Amino acid sequence: MRYLMTFSYDGSKYQGYQKQPNVRTIQEEIEKALFKIAGNRTISIHASGRTDSGVHALNQKAHFDLENKIEIERLKHSINSLIPKDIFVKKIEEVCSDFHARFDVIHKEYIYKVNMGEYNPIEKDYVYQCCEKLDVAEMDRALKYLEGTHDFKSFTKNDLKENYVRTILRTNLLINKKNHNMITFVFVGTGFMRYQVRNMVGTLIEIGKGKKKSVDIIDILNAKDRSKAGVIAPSSGLYLKNVNYNE
Amino acid sequence: MRYLMTFSYDGSKYQGYQKQPNVRTIQEEIEKALFKIAGNRTISIHASGRTDSGVHALNQKAHFDLENKIEIERLKHSINSLIPKDIFVKKIEEVCSDFHARFDVIHKEYIYKVNMGEYNPIEKDYVYQCCEKLDVAEMDRALKYLEGTHDFKSFTKNDLKENYVRTILRTNLLINKKNHNMITFVFVGTGFMRYQVRNMVGTLIEIGKGKKKSVDIIDILNAKDRSKAGVIAPSSGLYLKNVNYNE
Repeated sequence: MRYLMTFSYDGSKYQGYQKQPNVRTIQEEIEKALFKIAGNRTISIHASGRTDSGVHALNQKAHFDLENKIEIERLKHSINSLIPKDIFVKKIEEVCSDFHARFDVIHKEYIYKVNMGEYNPIEKDYVYQCCEKLDVAEMDRALKYLEGTHDFKSFTKNDLKENYVRTILRTNLLINKKNHNMITFVFVGTGFMRYQVRNMVGTLIEIGKGKKKSVDIIDILNAKDRSKAGVIAPSSGLYLKNVNYNE
Repeated sequence: MRYLMTFSYDGSKYQGYQKQPNVRTIQEEIEKALFKIAGNRTISIHASGRTDSGVHALNQKAHFDLENKIEIERLKHSINSLIPKDIFVKKIEEVCSDFHARFDVIHKEYIYKVNMGEYNPIEKDYVYQCCEKLDVAEMDRALKYLEGTHDFKSFTKNDLKENYVRTILRTNLLINKKNHNMITFVFVGTGFMRYQVRNMVGTLIEIGKGKKKSVDIIDILNAKDRSKAGVIAPSSGLYLKNVNYNE
């Protein structure tokens, strides 16, 4: 039986999603729980993609296979009782045996939270503490240049040997109604490369500070050169919000 | 020179505000910074009151004395550069030499955040994860019975040898406009005893669950017996929001 799991986590105490030797990861915590549930058998989970150290998820998705069918509410409860309290399985569904949580992704949504107001120690791991007034209208214009199908090589690690073309379907810049210093960038796309969202946000923030102009996004995209974009934004503000598959 | 400091902190990684041997406290972190700033002299800070382990502060206040006058913006910057990033000095003011951050308090405001919706691992240390739909109207009625001058012995530790009479000036129950499962209790009072707010909230939550009725607050107050009130609510949802002095 193949299962699809929807889960959320606080990434601030983990060295990212993906299992690595000698560090604490989200994947390992969940696989340790499944190992016990499956009667000391190794169960691998396959996520929609990894998130880096310090990055959070509101609705990450992963599939896994179990030999024996388990009632899904009981399975969800069992996993949640075995994993740390900063990870939470929200939902488990039965899926076809050929479903793949990574290869079948249609689009993903990331959000990035920025505080332009006074430093807030309580949210330091959950909202990027920029603490500087940014030009929101200019950043909003810059966002629109990122929409569409582009070669995003300037916004990712240079050493990837792959196709850098991705499509951003929708972007948004939301201002919190109660606190106008709290803004959220929204990116919906068919796929994102490593550090891509944080590099785009870092560049948007430089535009917000007046160091670059919104139209510079065009040149940065055309340059296909990481050094032309802004400094990477911290992981604290980034959330994987949704992963969508075909119904 | 006497200074009054306004500061905020994430209480989740501290054993409370007040200095104690062998544990990490807010007071000690700030006093360690002041020790360096004052040229290796011990500077004691005097807060408006302590907060317990796991409790947060948005605007805690404390006074301290320095022999030499230091420009306040420089002083604020120096302290912030020496303390951990989960504590932040928002403001420093010069005050009269007879001002006292604890004895001169006129009223204090505490807020307590509750999530009635699905468990959220990202906010587990910042919002009490009740994860159960509560009767908000009935809790709101109960809050009103707590307002005014009462003997709050039922809501504090039984072993205090003191006067248990306090005045609650104002209460409120706020519902988050975007997420109706997020509620905030507000308490403004002349003073609160140890665990008083968390014991009141714990009782309100039992009322919200239908285990008690709002009018039971009258009997609980009259009983002057801790065992009549509800179970203490977790520290995670509690924030010291404001401390007010005479202008």
